[in-house]
Parts: sequence; structure tokens; C-alpha cells
Amino acid sequence: MRLSDRIDAAVASAIQSGQRGPAPQRLSAALHYAVTPGGARIRPTILLSVAMACGDDRPALSDAAAAALEVIHCASLVHDDLPCFDDADTRRGKPALHRAFSEPLAVLTGDSLIVMGFQLLARAAAHAPDRALALIDVLATRTGMPFGICAGQGWESEDQIDLAAYHRSKTGALFIAATQMGAIAAGQDGEPWAELGDRIGEAFQLADDLRDALCDATELGKPAGQDDLHGRPNAVAQLGIRGAVARFDDVLAGAISSIPACPGEAALAQMVRAYADRLVPAVARQPIPGE
Amino acid sequence: MRLSDRIDAAVASAIQSGQRGPAPQRLSAALHYAVTPGGARIRPTILLSVAMACGDDRPALSDAAAAALEVIHCASLVHDDLPCFDDADTRRGKPALHRAFSEPLAVLTGDSLIVMGFQLLARAAAHAPDRALALIDVLATRTGMPFGICAGQGWESEDQIDLAAYHRSKTGALFIAATQMGAIAAGQDGEPWAELGDRIGEAFQLADDLRDALCDATELGKPAGQDDLHGRPNAVAQLGIRGAVARFDDVLAGAISSIPACPGEAALAQMVRAYADRLVPAVARQPIPGE
Repeated sequence: MRLSDRIDAAVASAIQSGQRGPAPQRLSAALHYAVTPGGARIRPTILLSVAMACGDDRPALSDAAAAALEVIHCASLVHDDLPCFDDADTRRGKPALHRAFSEPLAVLTGDSLIVMGFQLLARAAAHAPDRALALIDVLATRTGMPFGICAGQGWESEDQIDLAAYHRSKTGALFIAATQMGAIAAGQDGEPWAELGDRIGEAFQLADDLRDALCDATELGKPAGQDDLHGRPNAVAQLGIRGAVARFDDVLAGAISSIPACPGEAALAQMVRAYADRLVPAVARQPIPGE
Repeated sequence: MRLSDRIDAAVASAIQSGQRGPAPQRLSAALHYAVTPGGARIRPTILLSVAMACGDDRPALSDAAAAALEVIHCASLVHDDLPCFDDADTRRGKPALHRAFSEPLAVLTGDSLIVMGFQLLARAAAHAPDRALALIDVLATRTGMPFGICAGQGWESEDQIDLAAYHRSKTGALFIAATQMGAIAAGQDGEPWAELGDRIGEAFQLADDLRDALCDATELGKPAGQDDLHGRPNAVAQLGIRGAVARFDDVLAGAISSIPACPGEAALAQMVRAYADRLVPAVARQPIPGE
């Protein structure tokens, strides 16, 4: 089965589990809306790729981990789009959830998806309780305070921003979760895999900065130029396009060389490189006239 | 140690764990603000009381369960007070969190506290992984969709409300979690304890309806008359004061008779009754002039 099929099946099964019994139907529909159609599903793809590189001896647990990570990522998108944060009209090419449903349902959808992430892991624990508990701990660490995506968003309410902590928590956290959780699901220690996730996160942030500066809203499926608009730090403003692309290539090389020794090391390196190539908009690598 | 001291110590320790490293300071402060000073801490008190009635052979796990339940309850209060829900000015006698900090920080505080609840349980798992996983599953079930407090709040966005499902999820869910988690933390099956939690939740809802109808904002520490204002069902409107008090007494008797056989059964029954007596405003039991 292709990774994307595994991920879609695991996410769909998770959402269905939230719709048993006499559930409020609009909130049920909002949960489904928040996770479909998927975006690139890049975090769970990395997670499953690492799990497979490590042997993937408990695929049901890996699938649950992938779904848990993805629903928490989707929760963060729904809450980030709220009027009190980005006030976004669109997401993944369709109306943002709070516009399609309502602001109360957007808050509750995010809350419900966070809870669902942890429940999925607790319920996938059969025969591997220690792995499931380690997965829950890592996912919580990279979601909440002080190191997770909640902390990352929280930095935007500070007068003085610790930029390294901000980027590592806001964008890096769920990539670190992805590599660590993939390893843990397959029975390995997660710690040696943190660096790979951290570097992939940095590369992803650089690519995101390039896309935010160079692409229009149709290509992005969400509003463009948001960093500039919200006064957020953007690598293109600091380094220029050429500098940001060069930095991206450096970080990517570092990511690949950080991959711990494992049976599927070569295939994993290839996957990371192939994914990364698709992240940087082609226009960023085009020669600049007169240069 | 008194139960309230155990709970306060466990909650304080949890909040401190979210403040290590270079954390965003305003969000850190908001987490602390959301959980202190505590309200009645009734849910964790019930949890610890049940754990003690069942032998409380792993008090550190019981404490973690009590703190996890309380921080998730606090998360729900912070989100419920948001402008898009109750738009409350005050909570527990001080400004609501979104007024004292900001709306973004209120959303993030709720999210962070939900995550913290599950992390606390994962980290308290040493030597009892199966209990910790069962605790996480029960807490998730009673927090998210389709049976938890998120579902309860979600019902308020429906045109047709299933009143039984609404009350059971909105108010009852965390009481069911309290009794089940207390039993599980002490190594017992949680299922036989669901009815006690369900009935305590119903009694609590009746008492809350009486207070909302009969007390003023100073006594409540939050705005009064909110059910009437928001068109929410209230037992006093349906049954009158006398009827609601009689129903409360019936439900309480049922709660006590549902307590499963356990070493501390009698003490637990006494605790439930003592707590319940404090819930109903004295004015509700006063003779009505002319009656």
C-alpha cells in the first residue's frame, strides 16, 4: 500500500471513531472537513518513512501514530486560522473551517482533534504499551508547552521573541515528533532521530518562507504574503532569495547526513531529498536576469 | 495530607513542568492563571476519593490522574469563556483569562492544558503502563467527541438537541471520568464506576441550575442568569425550585446506592453526601412564604 493510502485510511478511521453514538452532527462534519482533503500529509509521511526505515514491525501502531500526528497538525491549522490569529479566509483551497462552519465549531474541532490524537495512541497500545506511552509523551512534548507548537504560537504574543525557540517550536516541533515517533513506533529509541526532524523542520520553514514571498494565493491554497503582513520573521527578507535557497540546500544536506544507521537508511535519504525538491518553488532556482 | 493539598500540589507541579526552558512567558503566566486559585476542585476530589475507597495503592498515579482531570476541566472553562461562546467577563471571581491576557493566549492556554493532561498521565506510567493507558483512554473519551465535553459544547450548535446526550456530555462527562479514573488509578475496572459519576454529574447539573437561577454574580464568582440569557435548558424553568430540589435529592440517593462494593464504600458515601449538601444554595430549601 502506498504511504498516502495508509495515512488516509488511518485518518479516516480516526474521524469515524469520533462519530459513533448520538454525536452532534455539525461538529462531526467539521472534524471531517478539517482533515479532508489532506494537504501534502508531509509529517505523517516522514513518520511512516522513518518507521519503515527502522523495520516497521508494528504497522498498526505506526499507522495510529501517523494519524495522531496528522490530526493534531490539522487541529493547529484550524486554530491558527481563527479570527484572533491569522483570520484566514481559506485553507487548502477551500474556506477556512471557521468560515465554513462557525467560530465556536472551529474552537471545538481543534480541541476534539487534539484529544483524538492522544486517544488513537492509547487505543493502539495492545502488545506494545511502552511504545504507546513513549509516543504519547513525545507527541505531547511537541504539541504543548514549553517546546511544542502551542509554545511556538505563544511566542507571537511576546514583546521579545527568542527566534531559535520560536522556529523550533512553531514549525520544527511536529517534524521532530514525526521522526521520533516513527522510530518509537518501530521499537527504536526516539532521541537519535530528533536532529533529522529538527533539520527537516528548518528546511520546511525556509521553503515556506520562499513560497510565502514568491507564490500567489492560488498556488498556495491560502493567502500569500502573510509573514510580511503580520510582521513575522521571514528568511527571504533576511537573506534574499539566493541566500534562502543556499541555506535550504545546506540544511537539507545536514538533515540527510544526520540519519541514524538503520536498515532503510539509503531509501529514507532518497525520500527526504525527493520530498524536499518539491517544496522549493521552481521560480526560486531560476537565474535572475542580468546576474 | 488533605485531598485539596494533594490536588493543589499535583496541579502546581504540572504547571511548573510546562515552564522549563525558554518558554514564552505570557503563555506560561496564562497557564498558571487558568488553574489558580482553584475552584472547588470537585472533579479531582471525587477522583481521589474513589481511588482511596479502592485502596489507592499507587498514589503518585492517582495524583497525576487528579491533576490531569483538573487541568482539562480548567481548559474547558477558558475556552467556554471565549467571546465566541459565553463571552464571560469573570471566572472564579477574577477577570476571565481572555480579558486578563488576550483571546489568542486564551485559545493557546486551553490547547496547552488539554495536551498537558495527557502528558501527565503518560509520564506517571512507570510500573503501571496498563493503568496509565486506560486512564488516557477514559480521559480522552470524556473530553473529546462523541461523548466528551467537546461534544457537549458542540450540541449547542445544533438545531435539534438530544437533551440526554447534551447533559451527559456537557456536564456529566468529567464526573464519569472522575469516578472511572479514580478506580483505574487504584487498579480496578473503571466500568462499574461510570454510573456513580453519571449520577453525580446529574446532581451537579441540577445544583448548578439552582445556583444560576437563585444566586447573584458575587456569590457565583461568574455571571448569573446565563442559562436564561443563552436560551439553555435549565431544570428550574422546567420543574420549579421545589421540583428541582426534589429531583436533586433523588439523584443523590441513586448516586450513593450505585457505589460499587469496595473497602472504603461507607466513607465514600459520606463524602459524596457532604459535598452534595454544599452544592445546593440554602435559599432553595427555605420554606416559600404562604406555602
